[in-house]
Amino acid sequence: MAEKDKMVKIDELRKFTVGILEKLDVPTEDAEITADNLIASDRRGIPSHGVARLKRYVDGLKSGMMKPKPEIKVLKEGPSFALIDGGNGLGQVVGEKGMKLAIDKAKKNGMAFVTVRNSNHYGIAGYYAMMALKEDMMGVSMTNTAPLVVPTFAKEIVLGTNPISIAAPAKKYPAIVVDMATSTVPRGKLEVYARLDKKLPLSWATDETGKATNDPKRVLDNLLERKGGGLLPLGGDTEELGGHKGYCLSFMVDILSGVLAGGDFGKHLYAGGKGKPSGCGHFFGCIDINVFRPVEDFKKDMDEYIEMLKGSNKADSAERIYVPGEKEFNFEERYKQEVPIDEKVYNTLQGLAKEFGLEFKL
Amino acid sequence: MAEKDKMVKIDELRKFTVGILEKLDVPTEDAEITADNLIASDRRGIPSHGVARLKRYVDGLKSGMMKPKPEIKVLKEGPSFALIDGGNGLGQVVGEKGMKLAIDKAKKNGMAFVTVRNSNHYGIAGYYAMMALKEDMMGVSMTNTAPLVVPTFAKEIVLGTNPISIAAPAKKYPAIVVDMATSTVPRGKLEVYARLDKKLPLSWATDETGKATNDPKRVLDNLLERKGGGLLPLGGDTEELGGHKGYCLSFMVDILSGVLAGGDFGKHLYAGGKGKPSGCGHFFGCIDINVFRPVEDFKKDMDEYIEMLKGSNKADSAERIYVPGEKEFNFEERYKQEVPIDEKVYNTLQGLAKEFGLEFKL
Repeated sequence: MAEKDKMVKIDELRKFTVGILEKLDVPTEDAEITADNLIASDRRGIPSHGVARLKRYVDGLKSGMMKPKPEIKVLKEGPSFALIDGGNGLGQVVGEKGMKLAIDKAKKNGMAFVTVRNSNHYGIAGYYAMMALKEDMMGVSMTNTAPLVVPTFAKEIVLGTNPISIAAPAKKYPAIVVDMATSTVPRGKLEVYARLDKKLPLSWATDETGKATNDPKRVLDNLLERKGGGLLPLGGDTEELGGHKGYCLSFMVDILSGVLAGGDFGKHLYAGGKGKPSGCGHFFGCIDINVFRPVEDFKKDMDEYIEMLKGSNKADSAERIYVPGEKEFNFEERYKQEVPIDEKVYNTLQGLAKEFGLEFKL
Repeated sequence: MAEKDKMVKIDELRKFTVGILEKLDVPTEDAEITADNLIASDRRGIPSHGVARLKRYVDGLKSGMMKPKPEIKVLKEGPSFALIDGGNGLGQVVGEKGMKLAIDKAKKNGMAFVTVRNSNHYGIAGYYAMMALKEDMMGVSMTNTAPLVVPTFAKEIVLGTNPISIAAPAKKYPAIVVDMATSTVPRGKLEVYARLDKKLPLSWATDETGKATNDPKRVLDNLLERKGGGLLPLGGDTEELGGHKGYCLSFMVDILSGVLAGGDFGKHLYAGGKGKPSGCGHFFGCIDINVFRPVEDFKKDMDEYIEMLKGSNKADSAERIYVPGEKEFNFEERYKQEVPIDEKVYNTLQGLAKEFGLEFKL
């Protein structure tokens, strides 16, 4: 929690978020899905994908770029796959529908993939992968995103930060939840470093010539003005650092979320400015562990694996070893009633409250 | 090609490799599958997974740790999934069977996953993912491997270099083939740097205290003597560098290839020394693109995406931009009749020729 954060009651935040979306003609149920998703992100310590996004959704709905009552259509379907058209509505609404469909199909057939096209920002990828955990299944979730990342050896942003999430249940311990952008860091990290006047590690971003840079302001300005340079794929700017692997992963996510779904991909995403929808897509997967082995045995092995990792010899300078999703789980436990909201975001929410004549209680 | 490599005729190399395996009671068909897989790796410019591995397979078969005529059993099966027991035979043999099963099931049902347990080293992951390309489908292949990688903040090797491969067809261009270890580099790279007395980039490995080091010999010695330290997950040694993301990916591959299949995982792999089989497992997937959209449309979009990436503005210092699998494809085109074999490997093969009374023609 940062110094200027305000603690906000979750009940109030949810009521407020639902209220704002309803004012923009989003059906109550869909507004609730979206609010739950955003708040889950704040609770998990990922404020960049939390209610901080509400203003952008409001802008999208106001401008008509996003549809409050989209026509969501299942275009193709089989026992273990489906293709859905999101009708350019809120990403969370079609996202939840898509993942539910994958879970239902996996229950009957052992596993399923669902791709979605014509969607929008869907919040944290992990939210959907984690839906499978309630059924003791494994979940997968990916999405393509606006171009911000340079391919290895390029100085032009072509790829998104295209995250990958996978969730697998354990027994004694919280589930393992991988949820990671395929860039070394998201743009938000550069904004934090710029604010603090800190130098960037050289595997984060390149300048307008395509050279790794430690100057966050230069990168952010270049991105705004499309002067060249951008975020680096996981690893860094060279093959020696493995940057081509992050590039591979980002491309892979876009093949599954974009090309396979028949949606937009690469530079085509969010490319039209006013009036052109984002064109983004998602990929959901679900595996019924029981078809491979009894889920209780799987969960016991996961417990043992978690203990093996956390109990391994620590580096001399390290305090502890984490497993994927552990930090987020700890945040979730801490933020059960209230979540911290950044002062700037808080003021934006107050602005929305005024604009839409809604109360936003601290 | 390195200076001391010898060019060896592929026909001869194949005949020789098959002959050696036959001498160890491997059925001809299985020996051919293994030879084709190893030589494919040499042809693709990945000699670490090529015939350089033959000696280890010979040792495994001789000691009884690997079975020449394994009982390969499909333990569980449904329309779009299967679990196979590899019977502790050659990884390539059960690998090819597993991927074929995934392809057959995907043809009928749109997609399929196959997990394999009780297997052994299966060569390059990409070999299996690429099998799907012949059917105009997408392929996925992963395997867990011997522990060599430290979790973030640990100084003990728990994870393997656990590679991920995914292959997707294009039309005008060669298919996209991602095939990457989830560590920044494989151990072989450290051996090369040690030989050349070169310093390591700091995101490759840690010393026995868990600190990033530029000393390849120290890391290799520590690994041999199990003194601590090892390879780093993709990214590096800190969360700031994204090393926890490589850790996540490696863990994810082991959940799918090991835990889900009911096989060994983490430190349990290759843990028993003499007499204990490797315990490794694989994960194969296949997607019939046609169930989502016409494969011809998909391939045209892939062409456009490849052009978008390769045609994006190059960094000022860069000569060209590659797409995943392009370099390996270029090697394959070059090495159609002959492949380069490292002098040391060549001598080892000559040694095997003498031992088994087989001719190995240059």
